[in-house]
Amino acid sequence: MNAEIISVGTELLMGQIVNSDAAFIAKQLTGLGIDSYFQTVVGDNPGKIKEVIKIAESRSDLLIFTGGLGPTQDDLTKQTVADHLGEELVMDRTGLMHIRQWFERSGRSMTQNNERQALVFRDGIVFPNPIGQALGTYIEKNEKGYLLLPGPPRELEQMFRQSVTPFLSDKYEDQQVILSKTLRFFGIGESTLTTLLDEMIRNQTNPTIAPYAGKYEVTLRITANAATEAVCEKLVDETKAEILAIVGEHHYGDGDESSLAEVVGKKLLESKSSLSAAESLTGGLFQSELVKVPGISEVFAGGIVSYQAEAKQRVLGVPEHVIETYGMVSPECAVAMAECARELFDTDLAISFTGVAGPDQMENKPAGTVWIALSKKNGPTAVQGFRFSRDRLGNREQTVLQGFDMIRRHLMDSDLER
Amino acid sequence: MNAEIISVGTELLMGQIVNSDAAFIAKQLTGLGIDSYFQTVVGDNPGKIKEVIKIAESRSDLLIFTGGLGPTQDDLTKQTVADHLGEELVMDRTGLMHIRQWFERSGRSMTQNNERQALVFRDGIVFPNPIGQALGTYIEKNEKGYLLLPGPPRELEQMFRQSVTPFLSDKYEDQQVILSKTLRFFGIGESTLTTLLDEMIRNQTNPTIAPYAGKYEVTLRITANAATEAVCEKLVDETKAEILAIVGEHHYGDGDESSLAEVVGKKLLESKSSLSAAESLTGGLFQSELVKVPGISEVFAGGIVSYQAEAKQRVLGVPEHVIETYGMVSPECAVAMAECARELFDTDLAISFTGVAGPDQMENKPAGTVWIALSKKNGPTAVQGFRFSRDRLGNREQTVLQGFDMIRRHLMDSDLER
Repeated sequence: MNAEIISVGTELLMGQIVNSDAAFIAKQLTGLGIDSYFQTVVGDNPGKIKEVIKIAESRSDLLIFTGGLGPTQDDLTKQTVADHLGEELVMDRTGLMHIRQWFERSGRSMTQNNERQALVFRDGIVFPNPIGQALGTYIEKNEKGYLLLPGPPRELEQMFRQSVTPFLSDKYEDQQVILSKTLRFFGIGESTLTTLLDEMIRNQTNPTIAPYAGKYEVTLRITANAATEAVCEKLVDETKAEILAIVGEHHYGDGDESSLAEVVGKKLLESKSSLSAAESLTGGLFQSELVKVPGISEVFAGGIVSYQAEAKQRVLGVPEHVIETYGMVSPECAVAMAECARELFDTDLAISFTGVAGPDQMENKPAGTVWIALSKKNGPTAVQGFRFSRDRLGNREQTVLQGFDMIRRHLMDSDLER
Repeated sequence: MNAEIISVGTELLMGQIVNSDAAFIAKQLTGLGIDSYFQTVVGDNPGKIKEVIKIAESRSDLLIFTGGLGPTQDDLTKQTVADHLGEELVMDRTGLMHIRQWFERSGRSMTQNNERQALVFRDGIVFPNPIGQALGTYIEKNEKGYLLLPGPPRELEQMFRQSVTPFLSDKYEDQQVILSKTLRFFGIGESTLTTLLDEMIRNQTNPTIAPYAGKYEVTLRITANAATEAVCEKLVDETKAEILAIVGEHHYGDGDESSLAEVVGKKLLESKSSLSAAESLTGGLFQSELVKVPGISEVFAGGIVSYQAEAKQRVLGVPEHVIETYGMVSPECAVAMAECARELFDTDLAISFTGVAGPDQMENKPAGTVWIALSKKNGPTAVQGFRFSRDRLGNREQTVLQGFDMIRRHLMDSDLER
């Protein structure tokens, strides 16, 4: 049993959007233990869609389509699949009512073409769309499954979680279980990591170990295959322990969703350490990442974005002589910023970021020069310097991650001291 | 002449990463006037890669591979394509030297498997990798082209811009020219937009008009096809003028890259209007989007992230009675925040955001309740209320965009008054 994802949309072929739907579905399939060996993208063209269907039928059991269910004239997926299979589409009454109500509630006028979004296979299954209009639908023919889902990512994701996952897990529940865990590393490169783990990776069978170099971090995905989830978990955990014995220092968390910000947020909440921030080159990026963590308002007070020099003095209170003597891009300025923020917001910790995002230099310091300071209620202020070599946004993103890692390492050390 | 993008990587099939490479290449091909009807994703498996090659050869002229050129054992693309074609791979001396130097410079130890990244087709063409190690390479056989490019997005993009684009445009320069322009709209839904433009969309031939609903905005892509770029431009501009005569009010910019933040940043710079911000629920997101605009430090002073109530009073200076009488999620608090920020930072404009990001309610106000205020040096403070219905991050992102739109409309009105 294996599935193929077929994304329909000329906007994908023209590069107007990134195919995040395929990544989402692929991750769900992995979680369900359903293999997938191919993904295909095709434009809004019935002839080419049919070509793709024939190829997919020859190599996959379940064809999952996304996109082309909307109200516009180039939305043709349902009609094309129905035509290919010789199956009939009918209007779903509940879906139609739902669409009409949606337009009434939102006060917008409903156009005729919106009704097409309620079409489903007469002899198939319907998946409701809780936040949009286009219904999902499924039909089986000649031992192949055809699952049609909407393209807008939010609609797809809600529909999948609410009704497609239960449907698929019900249908394929006697499959062998596959379990994956992703280990996340910061501050180590892919080739160093894989060299250190060379023997393990070379001898992998079950679980398998797949390294992946992300933009700023490296992940290892451990995947086990067994009759039950418990056996899978045991296999994965053993391999994880072996890996961490070698490269544990750089490991900050597990899972596809976890981020350094989240890990740090949770540690702050656990240790009840309040935090504030003073951001110069990062312009608020550190704080906007931190507030993604649910419940963070308990420990995160707020911060200052001091983008212009004047703001550093006026609002943050950095002494004029610090900026005049050492410049804004200096460890001294970073320390003063962190200490001022900690006093202003009266927090246990305060972090500061100053530097040159680029592309131009500043104060004769090259783009990518960054100073990060961490002021602590009980202890001396720490400061670290970096030289990044990315573009403007990349330098900022890496700066923010280094900041999170600095807090993470501080909180880990505090844990050890207790 | 048409190209097919083949992305190689099990991490794509497992949904660990999103296929941004395919979107990037697709966009470049569109710009070069090279058609592309299919994209395929396949895992790190030689047998399946060969299956995919055969299908692609039957329907496309140029096969563009990304991924699988790295140093790890599952990087097999070059070997598999060479094996399929019966072509030989050789070590590129310059590339090898470059790899060795890179490791020397960075002080990391070089492992044997890194050398494989310098393999190229003996009878092919080499594309250097200015920021990484794996070389790109191209070969032609039986009138088909095979272009192999690295997977890491930054490496791919630099290599493409520096050497692949000149190579392809040289090769296919006698093609018909295709020119696209994307018009961006905020504050109008896809179906309203397409209904208003129904007649134009129905009668489209050349240029074509393709609507696309993004997460928070709608775009229209106008694509013209002609013998010269000048003719294409004329066709596109005429269609654009027709569209704007109908829905111009909601049009904020052109191009795939432009964002509301950028448009607003440019308008601020043009009008020399200085700006500061006070952010509550958005936690710095507005400011971190704004600082993406190059040169913005001329007009953007900085801001306060007042995440906890105390910070609103202590640091920002919002009067206690405002919060006590009206609550933090109120138009009165938004107005006070904007006015306090404008005074603290001494700017022409200041924008404030307060509200409930969710998922829980606050002060008995449901998630998604948002107030945005814009304080002006010369004029009364404006305030607007919204009720969004997305998740925590979605409510924040939409809030920030509404803020940018509020500034955009204010600056447009100021333009008219002059």
